Amino acid sequence: NTLDSQSAGEDNDRERANQSDPSCDTILLQADPWKPCQRSRATVKEWLLRLRSCLGTVCGMEWYGYAALGISMAVLSFLVDLSVTKLLRAHQWLYLKLEGNGLLQFFCWTLYPACLCAAASSFTDNICPFSTGSGIPEVRTMLAGIEMPHYLSLTNLFTKLVALVCTLAAGSTIFLGKVGPFVHLSTIVGAYFSNLCTLIQGNKKERAAGEMLVVAAAVGVASCFGAPISGVLFSVEVMCSHFALRHYCPCFFSAACGALMFRLLSVWSGDGETPQALFKTNFPSSLPFYPLEIILFALLGLLCGAVSCCYLFCHRRVLRFTKTNPFLVKALTTEKGLYSGVVALFLASLTFPPSAGQYMASKLTMKQLLTSLLDSRQWSSQSHNASVQPGPDPLLEWSSSGSPVLSLAVFLLVKVWMMVLAWTLPLPTGYFMPVFVYGAALGRLFGEGAAYVSSTALTSSQQWASVNPGGYALAGAAAFSGAVTHTLSPALLALELTGQFSHALPVLLATLLANAVARSGHRPSFYDALSIGKRLPHLPSLVKASPRLPFTPIGQVLESRSVQLQKVAGPAEVQHAVNTSTDQQIPVVDSHESQIVLGFVLRSELLMFLRHCETDGTLEKHLDEVCCIHPNSVLLSPHNTVQEAHGILSLLGVQTLCVADRGRLVGVITWPEMKRILEDLAKEI
Amino acid sequence: NTLDSQSAGEDNDRERANQSDPSCDTILLQADPWKPCQRSRATVKEWLLRLRSCLGTVCGMEWYGYAALGISMAVLSFLVDLSVTKLLRAHQWLYLKLEGNGLLQFFCWTLYPACLCAAASSFTDNICPFSTGSGIPEVRTMLAGIEMPHYLSLTNLFTKLVALVCTLAAGSTIFLGKVGPFVHLSTIVGAYFSNLCTLIQGNKKERAAGEMLVVAAAVGVASCFGAPISGVLFSVEVMCSHFALRHYCPCFFSAACGALMFRLLSVWSGDGETPQALFKTNFPSSLPFYPLEIILFALLGLLCGAVSCCYLFCHRRVLRFTKTNPFLVKALTTEKGLYSGVVALFLASLTFPPSAGQYMASKLTMKQLLTSLLDSRQWSSQSHNASVQPGPDPLLEWSSSGSPVLSLAVFLLVKVWMMVLAWTLPLPTGYFMPVFVYGAALGRLFGEGAAYVSSTALTSSQQWASVNPGGYALAGAAAFSGAVTHTLSPALLALELTGQFSHALPVLLATLLANAVARSGHRPSFYDALSIGKRLPHLPSLVKASPRLPFTPIGQVLESRSVQLQKVAGPAEVQHAVNTSTDQQIPVVDSHESQIVLGFVLRSELLMFLRHCETDGTLEKHLDEVCCIHPNSVLLSPHNTVQEAHGILSLLGVQTLCVADRGRLVGVITWPEMKRILEDLAKEI
Repeated sequence: NTLDSQSAGEDNDRERANQSDPSCDTILLQADPWKPCQRSRATVKEWLLRLRSCLGTVCGMEWYGYAALGISMAVLSFLVDLSVTKLLRAHQWLYLKLEGNGLLQFFCWTLYPACLCAAASSFTDNICPFSTGSGIPEVRTMLAGIEMPHYLSLTNLFTKLVALVCTLAAGSTIFLGKVGPFVHLSTIVGAYFSNLCTLIQGNKKERAAGEMLVVAAAVGVASCFGAPISGVLFSVEVMCSHFALRHYCPCFFSAACGALMFRLLSVWSGDGETPQALFKTNFPSSLPFYPLEIILFALLGLLCGAVSCCYLFCHRRVLRFTKTNPFLVKALTTEKGLYSGVVALFLASLTFPPSAGQYMASKLTMKQLLTSLLDSRQWSSQSHNASVQPGPDPLLEWSSSGSPVLSLAVFLLVKVWMMVLAWTLPLPTGYFMPVFVYGAALGRLFGEGAAYVSSTALTSSQQWASVNPGGYALAGAAAFSGAVTHTLSPALLALELTGQFSHALPVLLATLLANAVARSGHRPSFYDALSIGKRLPHLPSLVKASPRLPFTPIGQVLESRSVQLQKVAGPAEVQHAVNTSTDQQIPVVDSHESQIVLGFVLRSELLMFLRHCETDGTLEKHLDEVCCIHPNSVLLSPHNTVQEAHGILSLLGVQTLCVADRGRLVGVITWPEMKRILEDLAKEI
Repeated sequence: NTLDSQSAGEDNDRERANQSDPSCDTILLQADPWKPCQRSRATVKEWLLRLRSCLGTVCGMEWYGYAALGISMAVLSFLVDLSVTKLLRAHQWLYLKLEGNGLLQFFCWTLYPACLCAAASSFTDNICPFSTGSGIPEVRTMLAGIEMPHYLSLTNLFTKLVALVCTLAAGSTIFLGKVGPFVHLSTIVGAYFSNLCTLIQGNKKERAAGEMLVVAAAVGVASCFGAPISGVLFSVEVMCSHFALRHYCPCFFSAACGALMFRLLSVWSGDGETPQALFKTNFPSSLPFYPLEIILFALLGLLCGAVSCCYLFCHRRVLRFTKTNPFLVKALTTEKGLYSGVVALFLASLTFPPSAGQYMASKLTMKQLLTSLLDSRQWSSQSHNASVQPGPDPLLEWSSSGSPVLSLAVFLLVKVWMMVLAWTLPLPTGYFMPVFVYGAALGRLFGEGAAYVSSTALTSSQQWASVNPGGYALAGAAAFSGAVTHTLSPALLALELTGQFSHALPVLLATLLANAVARSGHRPSFYDALSIGKRLPHLPSLVKASPRLPFTPIGQVLESRSVQLQKVAGPAEVQHAVNTSTDQQIPVVDSHESQIVLGFVLRSELLMFLRHCETDGTLEKHLDEVCCIHPNSVLLSPHNTVQEAHGILSLLGVQTLCVADRGRLVGVITWPEMKRILEDLAKEI
């Protein structure tokens, strides 16, 4: 478990890079002679080079990349939030203007989100179909070492960004979030910055690219909420199964830069006087909860765990249904825009405020929903007219049906189906925030119940008069979202989002118990189900779906026809090997009969050998006379499992591993081969 | 990076174990016939078995072990705190009773800690010399896979506990903490519970033992402060270089149980009405800091980083001095008690309140020091008489010399030398808390300066009137302790200890910058320096000390004389191999001439083969006719580095790896062999 010297090695690389490489400089300075303004361009270049060496003296270039990544994601997040708010306000304004005309109001309420969803869906379908969905399953697969270049194109960035704004602008009727797409966007931006750093430093750093992706995934979560600590931890839990601690510093650095920028932007835009938590609460700090309430929090955790199991079951069923029902399959392959529009129309008509919508506070945005659920005042007892808040009180919206607790119950019953339906939409959407809000509602209902019981049944003792239902909402949000994603960091996220540390212990307890229920009996998590549904070559998800699968011996799944060379191979055999294989390393055996592995030769050396033979005209040269046979680092046996092979491939950071049975070559494992094996295994589920 | 199916495999194990194993039950029920009360004992046993199967239906037995570990560590931590408080109060009482007689007061002030330290030191030296020091370096080494059975004995637990109470009772004059020893104590208790679980479940679970150690290390930190989240994260950062996420749930579960118990115990003992943070602060929540103050926090972080570098430099120098100075070496080997007493006497006489002690608030305990430093009121301007707190105000202690800021400066200048000196004491002590308090003092001084400048120079604008120096103390504590230990989680720990999330962003920023300064230029962290000083076989520390070292090829350091058998070995050769080797797996080669590795045989099978030959009387049998030759899983090459070999050994979880060059056996790597290699490498530094 000790790979720390990799970081040491990287540091050495960095130092070497800092001593600005003269060969690279001269290349940069050699202006093409036919381009104009040679003198001024040379001056600019010289200044840029000086700037680079100045920057390089402070720290490695990649740290500037991490900072730039964090800051740019924060700006992106802020801009998305800003445009979504404007679009939502426009919808609200139009709806209020049409007051008095029920039919027009209905059309305004339903057609606006339907058009936005249809537009977003057709847009993504036509420009970049890879950008639908959450993006987290794909990013996980990339972080596990599998290359998926389609998902890192700039077209994808553009498409996902535009479609995401449209989706979010459809509002709380569609009930979708932005965490997943932001992780994906951040990864794309990260890959771009990584290339930029490599270009500036002038040396290839394969590993730095991987590191930047890990950092980018963390920044994606952190910049959504301006929550640096929990953002990094959530991304660690969702993305990896083993986390190298040398990534900690870059991740936290980038996330802190992003969170700082995000909060400063909101200060500069006039949202507050100083950087604050996103959903600031005002829980009483002197006595946040009674010691005995911890039992209630534990019960809430178990409840959230049980509900999450039902929920994930529905989700898996609906995923399978959309894959098998011929009508839906057709709609989802050919008529994506129409399907999105129709579903959005249906969902919006369900939440039309004058009809069923009044029972589920459908006028509130996601942010208002969460703020109202986390309120520390008790809904069931207070007089709502005594509110002294400026602007409309979100609580009034909940009590428009008469009783806010009834509205909450209806909200819980209806939203679960709406959410599952919304998740079939072929749009770039996040699934974390809806789950978080739903959990908060669940916790709130529980908390209101507890507060009601304590204030009526226990008034004689006067001890429990001030039970805070907002604390239960906080714990419910953390526990439910933790159970659905099989992670613990939502507990910290909930604390960080609200800036409320007094409830740390009950929130953590509820999240732990919810996780215990959700993880019992080998159920895949939400993201695992998505990975399996998409047949992505992601080993941990496959393990969740079928625990025996990764114990398949590598010998069973290996393709035996691998290119190999014998020690005494002549030019003809080498030519054949070069033509048939595209690998960078080709294994060398003693002879085709004995098959004893000796090592490998590099493709570049083989090409040089062929050129050498051509120029000399001699056909009698043998491979071992000209080329250097590099010894293999590690030999796998066919009895090793797929999982072990995957682990060793990641651990050693090599491209090729030979599989040998008692010294004899059986096959070769490369990353593309590993991808094929995993895809084949995924098909078997 | 994907080993998640190990957890799946374990889950299977657990299920199998839950279906209570009949053979094991019968063994438990077979009461020895000569023991008394057979009937009642059988009834008790039956009930215990029923209880076991009841418990087993809810979750695996190890989860009860985790809960028990957390709770028992919390109780232990509470008891230690309680007895230390009593002992400190006794000292205080005696000191106050002697008021008026300066000489007697001086003797009381100095002899009390000196006697305690001398007693603790002789006690540990005579009963269990392994229990001195922090314990964290040893626990890290054990977690990296190296077995060190001396450090896990119950004698060690007992010695360390008693000596720790003595050390802590010596008070803030000696200025030592309890984090490190608690991690060690927790590991011992964890190992004990792990054995218990294995006994109850009736099946061997090697991996569960390792898991329990990881959990125990996390619980140790968490139970010290009642801070579950940061406790786990700190232990992860300090202990491992790669962290498997499947340990997350057990760690957090156990830590949450521990923290809950710790806080409930303090509620029940009458410390407060409800579970609260340990050092609860009352920072203003409406405007915790101005956006521009973030620059000041960043500067503070850089300052802390720079001071930590000087500090670690002194520490390394003093460590080396105690190893090389003949007088000290002699004192530390033969006269430990005397040395401790003399040093404690010297330190205590330095802090005698009527003399130099009044300039460094020496009457305050560690807890009072931290509370006073984190106070949000500005020291330099307020009228101290207006304090409405019950009991003596710690601030009065700071201002006993006239100016509290002057006292703070003296405290900072003197304490750094006292701390470095105290660290040479051969006692079971923690080094984290002193560093944390020192960082808080550093931050406080910076904050007081900022508050003074803002209140005098900027009064015209009236905008910066309410700068909170407590926030700077918080950031300083996190940044300094983070820089000294090369970790980031002290940032979260500071937030969790104070329950103050409003300062999350500036604290994280300061910690990141301090870490950046401290980590630049390959300096080992505090714990790395301890590991290197003790020559422990801990690879990541060795890497920090000499980055080239772990890239040594395994072929250079491997002992070539390894026991091997050829395929056609007869009973004589087998007998010889069994006699010379103690390994459980013995490699088999094709023949002694070709040396082609075929696989390995188990020692147990060899013994069976010998018994078989003896009973049959035939001496003509060959090894491959009787024993099963298991294929090797992975073959290393001599060109693999020590680090890669260590990584593969941990990854595969095997005991033996063969090293082969082009199919020929070169040697065998086992964990004891790895330990020897690492110890040899440590000697080269």
